[in-house]
Amino acid sequence: MSTMDIAKKYVELCKTHQNHLIIETMFSPDIVSVEAGAPPGASAEVTGIKAVGEKSKTWMETHEVHSAKVEGPWPNGDKFIVRFTYDVTNKPSGQRFTMDEAALLTVAGDKIVREEFFYSMGG
Amino acid sequence: MSTMDIAKKYVELCKTHQNHLIIETMFSPDIVSVEAGAPPGASAEVTGIKAVGEKSKTWMETHEVHSAKVEGPWPNGDKFIVRFTYDVTNKPSGQRFTMDEAALLTVAGDKIVREEFFYSMGG
Repeated sequence: MSTMDIAKKYVELCKTHQNHLIIETMFSPDIVSVEAGAPPGASAEVTGIKAVGEKSKTWMETHEVHSAKVEGPWPNGDKFIVRFTYDVTNKPSGQRFTMDEAALLTVAGDKIVREEFFYSMGG
Repeated sequence: MSTMDIAKKYVELCKTHQNHLIIETMFSPDIVSVEAGAPPGASAEVTGIKAVGEKSKTWMETHEVHSAKVEGPWPNGDKFIVRFTYDVTNKPSGQRFTMDEAALLTVAGDKIVREEFFYSMGG
């Protein structure tokens, strides 16, 4: 499959709220997930499909998604970029905010081997 | 300067159509510029500020920009992403089209050392 084939499938699964299928069917077992930032004591980088799956599950459980916009993909070589604009409420704090970010995905052997999330930390 | 400081300056110069100042003041002499694709015989990768400046100049001379939208920046570590939506006409062909792309910029020593343009090749 081309990077664009994989990118289109990724976007389709995001748009239809089947992110669990991305993890189960599109991620390499050794996937590396990199956040732009992390709370004190936490790591911005997580490795392995189990840890990445748990991170995703925790996020889903602690956030209510009111609406989601997924744009792209934009490919270049073995990478592609996707833009996310999510209107969400963080359940523990009750705070509603707009999640405005871009993701850079790297493909190898028809699997996603790296996901990097880009967003402002208020800087 | 933080990546976000540099990213904000880059976006401001894009929005005010001062792209020549980006090349003159923000690029490393050894900048590498990578396109998602290139015409037969041409290289998708160009190295050095002189070659990248010439590529930019050629593009500006052969395209009329009717309107431009610049979104972002979204930072992560030493990188940031910017989205461009340009309504342009290619002067030699007379063809008007929407340039819908994302750029991934890499910063080192307060200079931009790599620019990668992500866009669909119709795949």
